Amino acid sequence: MTVLRYKAKIVYDGTQFSGFQVQPDMRTVQGDLEKAVTKLAKGQEVRVHGAGRTDAGVHARGQIIHFDFPFEIDADGLMLGMNSVTSSEITILDVERVEDTFHARYLAKGKKYTYRVDNNQFRDPFLRYYSHYHRYPMNKEKVEKALAQLAGTHDFTSFASTHSDKENKVRTLYQASVEVNEDTNEWVFTFVGNGFLYNMIRILIGTLLEVADGRRKPEEIQGIIAAEDREAAGMTLSPVGLCMEEVYYEMEDIPGYPKEE
Amino acid sequence: MTVLRYKAKIVYDGTQFSGFQVQPDMRTVQGDLEKAVTKLAKGQEVRVHGAGRTDAGVHARGQIIHFDFPFEIDADGLMLGMNSVTSSEITILDVERVEDTFHARYLAKGKKYTYRVDNNQFRDPFLRYYSHYHRYPMNKEKVEKALAQLAGTHDFTSFASTHSDKENKVRTLYQASVEVNEDTNEWVFTFVGNGFLYNMIRILIGTLLEVADGRRKPEEIQGIIAAEDREAAGMTLSPVGLCMEEVYYEMEDIPGYPKEE
Repeated sequence: MTVLRYKAKIVYDGTQFSGFQVQPDMRTVQGDLEKAVTKLAKGQEVRVHGAGRTDAGVHARGQIIHFDFPFEIDADGLMLGMNSVTSSEITILDVERVEDTFHARYLAKGKKYTYRVDNNQFRDPFLRYYSHYHRYPMNKEKVEKALAQLAGTHDFTSFASTHSDKENKVRTLYQASVEVNEDTNEWVFTFVGNGFLYNMIRILIGTLLEVADGRRKPEEIQGIIAAEDREAAGMTLSPVGLCMEEVYYEMEDIPGYPKEE
Repeated sequence: MTVLRYKAKIVYDGTQFSGFQVQPDMRTVQGDLEKAVTKLAKGQEVRVHGAGRTDAGVHARGQIIHFDFPFEIDADGLMLGMNSVTSSEITILDVERVEDTFHARYLAKGKKYTYRVDNNQFRDPFLRYYSHYHRYPMNKEKVEKALAQLAGTHDFTSFASTHSDKENKVRTLYQASVEVNEDTNEWVFTFVGNGFLYNMIRILIGTLLEVADGRRKPEEIQGIIAAEDREAAGMTLSPVGLCMEEVYYEMEDIPGYPKEE
């Protein structure tokens, strides 16, 4: 039987999903996508593989998936079909035929995530599912000092959930930056790295907000990294601010990755 | 008994409300606000009056309300208290003491509304409650020609719900414009007027989208206005794109209102 591999970019509002990964009796993004593709495959069961397993409430503007479809179908037609059978919480973009060797997760060389913080005096109702609310005044200069220490290659044990199953916790952050949207009073943090440990960004932000509002000094970050101890870092913040923006399959595509001369 | 009148600006996500106005057995914005203020008034029932009665699903960034509070209370304290007892779908801003003669609805001289249209090839999941989805390519030049004909003083009978209870359907639009957000492919229509008939903006947009995608010519607008017949205009579009942005109590504050030399 000929099986054709497809790659697709997926946008989803994670609010109503119990995360990406299939779980019994739960509504998940992977579950909805598998139902959609299986339907288009006339009932032949199709497994969908994602680049990353986002938690409940986490969003994506650029999750990448791959799956094997049991018969020849035009990529654009497949995209149209998938969009017709998924709910309005999921949109499928950029479907393309790929080599049988492509794998959305194993071949990913880097990812970009954003984390949004609503810093209004009172919570903005329109941001409540997309931005973590932090009521205290935040100092951008201090946050940028802290971000500068986080960029680069470090053992991120202090910023990993104790439920992380990865032995090696050394990762590289090619970009760790923040921009403030003065119109909406949102702080948008961007992290680009070669890999992220479980809850890593939510713990990074928990720590950075302590720096932002003065509970910690920016200089403490180096000591927190050096401690290699989850207890040294701040809280794991809510999933709602987190969004998977992009997945990179070529090192050259990673923003901040040092280019050869 | 001394009664003190307060004015407040209200932001709300209308998705989960059955509109602004109190209705039996329904969750409404006015109902939630009355419960909140009544609670802060230690159970003494307080009526809340809004500048406009938005429909189910319609949002507000600048609804104005007034109410009479049964005892002396600092405006900032009242704002803090109201924000503490309302859900995250409502935010209260800019509370101030006003004269007993102030009335949010009767004294309003003008309003600004926006209507957002998601013109992506596939619906953007993050816009589904805040932007009406329109899949067909839209021509901005044609839309602007149509908007130019709508601006000014006209009998808007053709653009009013047949359930409108207003005798006189002559209204003035001081501004009727559109901007395209190239990042999100959203079209943001702005209407500023001295008053709006029931469903007027949703019918205006229903007609404008027919112009945008070529089903009607921009020149037809004048004939539709002249017809003074609801049948002459386009469909009433969904409420989700509509947002009450501002209420004006002084003619000089209205954008586009001709200033005296």
